[in-house]
Amino acid sequence: MKSAHLESRLLGEIEKVPVIDVHSHVPHDAPFATSLRDLLGYHYFTELAHSAGMAKALLDPETPDAEMMPALAEALRSFDNTVQYGWLMELARELFDFQHERLTRENWRELDEAIRARGNRRERVREILQKASLEKVFLTNEFDEDLAGIDGGVFVPSLRADRLVFQLTEKGVCESLARVTQSEIGSAAGLRAALEKVFGRFEAGGAVSVAISLPPQFSVFPVVEGDLDTAVGKAAQGKPLSAAETVTLHCGVLFAMTELCRQFEMPFQMMCGVRRGAYRHGVYQGCDMLQAGDTLRNLMPLLNSFPEVTFCLSVLCDGQAQELASYGWLVRNVVVSGHWWYDAMPAYMERDLAARLQSVPKTKLLGFYSDMYKLEFGLSKFNMYRRLLARVLARDFVEDGRGTEVEALEVARLLLRENAVRIFRV
Amino acid sequence: MKSAHLESRLLGEIEKVPVIDVHSHVPHDAPFATSLRDLLGYHYFTELAHSAGMAKALLDPETPDAEMMPALAEALRSFDNTVQYGWLMELARELFDFQHERLTRENWRELDEAIRARGNRRERVREILQKASLEKVFLTNEFDEDLAGIDGGVFVPSLRADRLVFQLTEKGVCESLARVTQSEIGSAAGLRAALEKVFGRFEAGGAVSVAISLPPQFSVFPVVEGDLDTAVGKAAQGKPLSAAETVTLHCGVLFAMTELCRQFEMPFQMMCGVRRGAYRHGVYQGCDMLQAGDTLRNLMPLLNSFPEVTFCLSVLCDGQAQELASYGWLVRNVVVSGHWWYDAMPAYMERDLAARLQSVPKTKLLGFYSDMYKLEFGLSKFNMYRRLLARVLARDFVEDGRGTEVEALEVARLLLRENAVRIFRV
Amino acid sequence: MKSAHLESRLLGEIEKVPVIDVHSHVPHDAPFATSLRDLLGYHYFTELAHSAGMAKALLDPETPDAEMMPALAEALRSFDNTVQYGWLMELARELFDFQHERLTRENWRELDEAIRARGNRRERVREILQKASLEKVFLTNEFDEDLAGIDGGVFVPSLRADRLVFQLTEKGVCESLARVTQSEIGSAAGLRAALEKVFGRFEAGGAVSVAISLPPQFSVFPVVEGDLDTAVGKAAQGKPLSAAETVTLHCGVLFAMTELCRQFEMPFQMMCGVRRGAYRHGVYQGCDMLQAGDTLRNLMPLLNSFPEVTFCLSVLCDGQAQELASYGWLVRNVVVSGHWWYDAMPAYMERDLAARLQSVPKTKLLGFYSDMYKLEFGLSKFNMYRRLLARVLARDFVEDGRGTEVEALEVARLLLRENAVRIFRV
Repeated sequence: MKSAHLESRLLGEIEKVPVIDVHSHVPHDAPFATSLRDLLGYHYFTELAHSAGMAKALLDPETPDAEMMPALAEALRSFDNTVQYGWLMELARELFDFQHERLTRENWRELDEAIRARGNRRERVREILQKASLEKVFLTNEFDEDLAGIDGGVFVPSLRADRLVFQLTEKGVCESLARVTQSEIGSAAGLRAALEKVFGRFEAGGAVSVAISLPPQFSVFPVVEGDLDTAVGKAAQGKPLSAAETVTLHCGVLFAMTELCRQFEMPFQMMCGVRRGAYRHGVYQGCDMLQAGDTLRNLMPLLNSFPEVTFCLSVLCDGQAQELASYGWLVRNVVVSGHWWYDAMPAYMERDLAARLQSVPKTKLLGFYSDMYKLEFGLSKFNMYRRLLARVLARDFVEDGRGTEVEALEVARLLLRENAVRIFRV
Repeated sequence: MKSAHLESRLLGEIEKVPVIDVHSHVPHDAPFATSLRDLLGYHYFTELAHSAGMAKALLDPETPDAEMMPALAEALRSFDNTVQYGWLMELARELFDFQHERLTRENWRELDEAIRARGNRRERVREILQKASLEKVFLTNEFDEDLAGIDGGVFVPSLRADRLVFQLTEKGVCESLARVTQSEIGSAAGLRAALEKVFGRFEAGGAVSVAISLPPQFSVFPVVEGDLDTAVGKAAQGKPLSAAETVTLHCGVLFAMTELCRQFEMPFQMMCGVRRGAYRHGVYQGCDMLQAGDTLRNLMPLLNSFPEVTFCLSVLCDGQAQELASYGWLVRNVVVSGHWWYDAMPAYMERDLAARLQSVPKTKLLGFYSDMYKLEFGLSKFNMYRRLLARVLARDFVEDGRGTEVEALEVARLLLRENAVRIFRV
Repeated sequence: MKSAHLESRLLGEIEKVPVIDVHSHVPHDAPFATSLRDLLGYHYFTELAHSAGMAKALLDPETPDAEMMPALAEALRSFDNTVQYGWLMELARELFDFQHERLTRENWRELDEAIRARGNRRERVREILQKASLEKVFLTNEFDEDLAGIDGGVFVPSLRADRLVFQLTEKGVCESLARVTQSEIGSAAGLRAALEKVFGRFEAGGAVSVAISLPPQFSVFPVVEGDLDTAVGKAAQGKPLSAAETVTLHCGVLFAMTELCRQFEMPFQMMCGVRRGAYRHGVYQGCDMLQAGDTLRNLMPLLNSFPEVTFCLSVLCDGQAQELASYGWLVRNVVVSGHWWYDAMPAYMERDLAARLQSVPKTKLLGFYSDMYKLEFGLSKFNMYRRLLARVLARDFVEDGRGTEVEALEVARLLLRENAVRIFRV
């Protein structure tokens, strides 16, 4: 009883904290839904529907609403037990006044119309953010993306490093890098100069961090300049690289970008452990998998090499949760960040959050980020996290005697807002 | 309070659901105990007794009851804290009216006599199943086993693939396969033809699935037909195989059997991650171990190659629980099945079950199977699971607002019965 | 309500059990703090302060109190959410009557003076032990340490094997071994004879066990005598060893010491999974890390080779918790021991303890050890464990119907005291 009251008081206060969401994939020029499809097209729903048996053809981007929506609404019944389904219903209720208990093939048009109607409102962005208690939302931007027109009052750009680090040999990437930086990418030095221009452009555009996702067991180590020269040269000329040269290129570019993080004083946000394309038959964005039995130790050479760079680390695999918390505990330049994707289910988050609060300095925790593609999901996802945070702080912090209710709220504010403000200087 | 009432109401309803137990080792011609030894001989008890210090000689199959039983009853005191001990006492009370608080060297004969008396009753099988709320129990049958005489009203055969995949080079296996299928096993084609006859025979005998247990880090990949020909040829002639040929044989047979699963529309039940014979000094069936730090990724080539085959996957290692749940979430032909052996302790099952209910479509979950050798343990093991299911559904599903009490019971019915009925078409 | 009362009754009784602490680093000639620095110098505090941003120079052993203490007290604010901070405040209150709610740069001298005053008391050791309900504390002693003067009424020496197994090639180690044993270390036989003398000396000095910490993925296997001869010969002469010879030396010495454990009937305490020096920029004793994705399987050859030796195993990585519990369940000569270092946070311990109590014979569990450097921390750390033990026994053992309140207390006594008494014969 006492516990339930405490938890509910904490939640009430937590809900008032204006959140800084440090990672999302929101497109700044289409940040909210203008149709039901914009919401149900989120890979969490299409992949679950497909996994539960919905025909892949019906989930094709070309399939018209009239076919796809009723079938998808029907498919929801197979996974209405999940947290993901809960996200959908909560935002439908809170943001679109959808009053039905379930979304069905009978009532989907009702929700679709409500979304379309609100999608026309001016100030819709701020309306959603206010309802969701979000103050600022980080974006993830490609190096060659145009940053003009981003509403800096709400959005904060981040430079996405994935293509530069892992896809420099793919068609058009070097060319695009050369074009946007007006540089010649034929050598390690040339590449570095181009990357520095990218960083300069992003800094000017308001970016405050760099972000990358890494495959499991990716080993990071310093490379020899001459080897990198060769690898970059071949990549720029579109020549095939050997396995060793590929590794050299990946590590060399990652080190170069980390060096620029140091120079531009930008934290590096790293999401560790995703196996891209593991499942061959999945839907769009529904083919990636985590890998059990993985370790973060391969990152240590990078963390050791750049003690001045802040690394905000996330993991995809629950089996690395303790290792990550221990990095936050011991390694000065590591910040423990959020709960990512497959790992962002309450059953995993609950123990992980409790352990972080027990063992990591409260100033080194970024509580949660949305990873969302449309702003609406920020409401549901952060509400899920807020409820969990209130529960863990009540039971594990206040009732266990580690702090008072007031101190618990201070911790909550650090996790939701203050640490992000300090670490990213937003 | 509210929570306890809800949990208890849910449990009351859950206990009424007639369960389909999709995996056991019950011998169809001796399915229940006719002596205490039949129960205490279960490896869970002999291995714990040995581990806690009981002399191995006393646990030898040749040791007469009068020596072994009192010593084993005495040894129980060292592990009367465990869940396994709880299974024993619960079934003794529920199925044999054993009223003592403990089983001791003084009272073991009383229980032994009660077991012997009931072992003579006609309809004992149905009596136990009714008490245990079990409707059907899957068996695990060797490819060369006689399926005649299996009571199809109660038992469902499964083809055990372990010997075919991993022990084809051992003495007598090829010969037995040739004999029961009246085939010549000298080539890949010959082997396939023989396997097809095995499947045909099992289908005719009422089998609805194939089952196998896999060692940790077993990599599954397609093999070249010529290589398989060579490997099968050598195996059939009893010639020694190289390491590469052995791998070819294992993968080739597994692929061939999976292809037959496709053809015969039988789900493939896979138990992943057991290291056989790891502990050299253990008792009978008490030498196998799990392995931390393992991954399911090596199965992916098989899952990708047979999108039409349903794979019901279990893991032995808690560290793979999240990976397995994520496979159920994403991969259409994966069903998440039960909690296996070392992993079937409530402390592990509780979080795992909560995570599955949060993230995997409810139609893709087989809640629990007994893995038992005698029907009596179905009562205790499923009761353990039912209590857990009621608790998790109460706290994590209903109270967390993901569904109503009625919906929670629908989920329970799917996990205990309906999904098995649909997936295995029983 | 019922649960809270039960838990509190259990805790009251548990607090009365005089504990045998089977592993610490307490120096027998300076076992308690004589200044605040003795407490705040514990690596848990310096590493967290450094991790949270405190300048490394301020944490240097040479930095005077007047500079270091106020800065460290200030730094505590960054991690006052942690369990480690809780340890400090609890012992300050209980052992030094420190009444402030927090330790600050304003009041640190007050605590410092209280520590200095009590540090002069005769009988301070017994005063602390009584307050902490500790009866005996195991020490960790180097092979060349003088054991004279150890108060055997309170302390129990253990032979630390780390330097012998892993650092025999480092300057001075062989020389020191030769000197203290008056032996010639030029061959495998010579080394064994010297080690036997070390064991004899430790047995005479009251030692009852050997202790070692092992790196992740250390593989233990028997070596060929001739190879060991060569490796020992080179080590003794200070010649460089090849990688293979190094491995031979490590395994050979470990096997030799285990053989002596057999001969002297001493349990071998093994702490598995620490990566020494992983973090390059850490403070003193603050550079070591765990590694996710690791397994205990590499120890199995040793466990199999010495069925008569009792191995008391601990792990650093939560991902190995289930594997370790399963070893305790199955492997007769394995005792599951405590919760080590990064893994000794309540969030990890709670589930691990529940699982051990569900699956491992109660006679094979050593509940907790302090790993402390000063006796004062025994109070806080064991109190943390006692609260957890009371909670898990209440909820998971008594309320789940696995035993009565009286039986729960029997289990607690085994875990805190009786098993240690029996296993180490103290």
